[in-house]
Amino acid sequence: MQKTITVLPGDGIGQEVVEAATKVLDKVAERYGHQFEYRYGDIGGTSIDKNNDPLPQETIDTCLQSDGVLLGAVGGPKWDNLKSGMRPEQGLLGIRKALGLFANLRPVTGHESLTDSSTLKKEVIEGVDLVIVRELTGGLYFGEPKERREIDGESGAVDTLAYKKSEIERIVRQAFEMAKVRRKKLTSVDKANVLETSRLWRETVDEIKGDYPEIEVEHMLVDNAAMQLIREPKQFDVVVTENTFGDILSDAASMLTGSLGMLPSASIGSKAPGLYEPVHGSAPDIAGKGIANPLATISSAAMMLKYSFGMLEEADAIDNAVAEVLRNGHRTGDLAKPGEKALSTEEMTEKVIDAL
Amino acid sequence: MQKTITVLPGDGIGQEVVEAATKVLDKVAERYGHQFEYRYGDIGGTSIDKNNDPLPQETIDTCLQSDGVLLGAVGGPKWDNLKSGMRPEQGLLGIRKALGLFANLRPVTGHESLTDSSTLKKEVIEGVDLVIVRELTGGLYFGEPKERREIDGESGAVDTLAYKKSEIERIVRQAFEMAKVRRKKLTSVDKANVLETSRLWRETVDEIKGDYPEIEVEHMLVDNAAMQLIREPKQFDVVVTENTFGDILSDAASMLTGSLGMLPSASIGSKAPGLYEPVHGSAPDIAGKGIANPLATISSAAMMLKYSFGMLEEADAIDNAVAEVLRNGHRTGDLAKPGEKALSTEEMTEKVIDAL
Ligand SMILES: CC(C)[C@H](C(=O)O)[C@@H](O)C(=O)O
Ligand SMILES: CC(C)[C@H](C(=O)O)[C@@H](O)C(=O)O
Repeated sequence: MQKTITVLPGDGIGQEVVEAATKVLDKVAERYGHQFEYRYGDIGGTSIDKNNDPLPQETIDTCLQSDGVLLGAVGGPKWDNLKSGMRPEQGLLGIRKALGLFANLRPVTGHESLTDSSTLKKEVIEGVDLVIVRELTGGLYFGEPKERREIDGESGAVDTLAYKKSEIERIVRQAFEMAKVRRKKLTSVDKANVLETSRLWRETVDEIKGDYPEIEVEHMLVDNAAMQLIREPKQFDVVVTENTFGDILSDAASMLTGSLGMLPSASIGSKAPGLYEPVHGSAPDIAGKGIANPLATISSAAMMLKYSFGMLEEADAIDNAVAEVLRNGHRTGDLAKPGEKALSTEEMTEKVIDAL
Repeated sequence: MQKTITVLPGDGIGQEVVEAATKVLDKVAERYGHQFEYRYGDIGGTSIDKNNDPLPQETIDTCLQSDGVLLGAVGGPKWDNLKSGMRPEQGLLGIRKALGLFANLRPVTGHESLTDSSTLKKEVIEGVDLVIVRELTGGLYFGEPKERREIDGESGAVDTLAYKKSEIERIVRQAFEMAKVRRKKLTSVDKANVLETSRLWRETVDEIKGDYPEIEVEHMLVDNAAMQLIREPKQFDVVVTENTFGDILSDAASMLTGSLGMLPSASIGSKAPGLYEPVHGSAPDIAGKGIANPLATISSAAMMLKYSFGMLEEADAIDNAVAEVLRNGHRTGDLAKPGEKALSTEEMTEKVIDAL
């Protein structure tokens, strides 16, 4: 097959990790007789520097004309207080919105060989296999008004958490569909004892569940969910939740895998190409040093093969290669224990390619 | 000294754990020559049943006329879908608001003897000593509008996250003051790369920090904070954050102590009496069985002695008694490992009283 992939390296280690992932994709192409053509686009802080815009229209157009989008990461202290008010994150939020990517899938799988790197006990994380389905184009991130405003005669600010019923419906259906091909359990996370949007969310889940009689559905409050993810993560299969809640819970859940450097994600919509990115950020502190862990991005590329290209065997091949490399004891700095050898980004990538 | 304490048992295990705490307070009164007079008030679901109101005016008045308020917990499935639209939680949110309790202090201390009960590794949690300062009368919990509303011609809902600058200032100052008498480190948690209120929050912290040159100040994004609490909790001293973020982070942090049944909290304002309550909820599944862990409520009573009555020695005596009981291997069901004997609420309370 021939596929066009838009690559958006973004900022910080974004550049390094997407390079690693494209090398792995090249190897897959070679081995399975595919052709991947890459087009590069600007996004985030580097795009502000270059184009005075965190998300040029050209980037959006390029993405729309491709079969899948691979993104590194955006942000960094360099762009934290720009006079223009521009922020790298506007690029990321903008591309999610422009492509209509309402569902962000964040699988968390315990790699047996990594249990030592986690701060959680082995017996707690061994066998964890859950996916967080985060709503990505609504909720507290996008609701209007979002502004500075005078309140009671003094300066203040507001953000808005808003959902239309149809927005909740489509993400909840997505989650039910995932649960159907997995262990058939869905946990819907909200704060229904306090938030009106959460009560609408809960009602909507309860309506839709009639269409999925084979799925066991459970409602959980977000505070409790944050605790249960650490207390007994194996109770979860598919978790569906609001944008901000999903952001927080998935970072907490990353600790189950030993490092945020391990977590891939897929953002999908109803029409546009999917966008694949690691859950970790741009890590400005280690950017440019060639030591970033490329595995989350490599696994994100595997998700692209699976969800956007339907290349299930190829996706599995990457996942198996990553697992094998870890089993063989190879570690980047974020995973290495004191005294263990830490591989560079490039060395780790080579190990994955060799294993393919 | 003579003090009047309003006791609000609330729902579920609330009844059982406040009874335990008043017994411990009685022992303290006896030993140190104080007199504690208790007045009881209705709140939550039991108050809906009795008064058709989750927070009768009489309860507010009783609280206002006392020196401190001890609360159990509110809520339960019984009251989840009342036709009246009333909810037990309105009682809790209402009393916080009525008493102007803008600062919720949630200390998290690793009891050495409990490291086995935690799902985190011993070396990660040993020596943890942090306090989450959660803003309690603003943010996403209280902002208006909070309503069902038509959006683009279909049904929807909104909640509002709003802060006046003065609301941020007072909670941030509270946190700085705590940091001053602790290890002099303040972590302000926000989502400034997405939320306007967070940007105002961050600016306000940066302005106030000039008044506290001896305090080391750090900003952290909430997703990262959720991860860092699990990854390296010892990096934290005082954490200050928005209402919802504090709700989520403190439940996650409870796992550092082995059980949510261990975490006390103090809610304080500028004038009214402080309110003291366990972080855990009403636990309807074990309510009435006499097996709830009373230690979070007993520790909350100790916080009342310290913050509302200035009885530092007495507060320490309770904390030491709790630590000793744990050191001696006594456990309630939530803390006991398989095969270990689980004490009842009453037995555990007696152990604490004996240790006093
Ligand atoms: C960079 C930031 C805007 C983004 C988010 O909050 O969505 C990131 O944390 C993520 O989770 O992808
Ligand atoms: C019961 C609920 C409204 C409450 C809250 O969210 O504040 C509880 O979770 C807490 O943390 O005290």
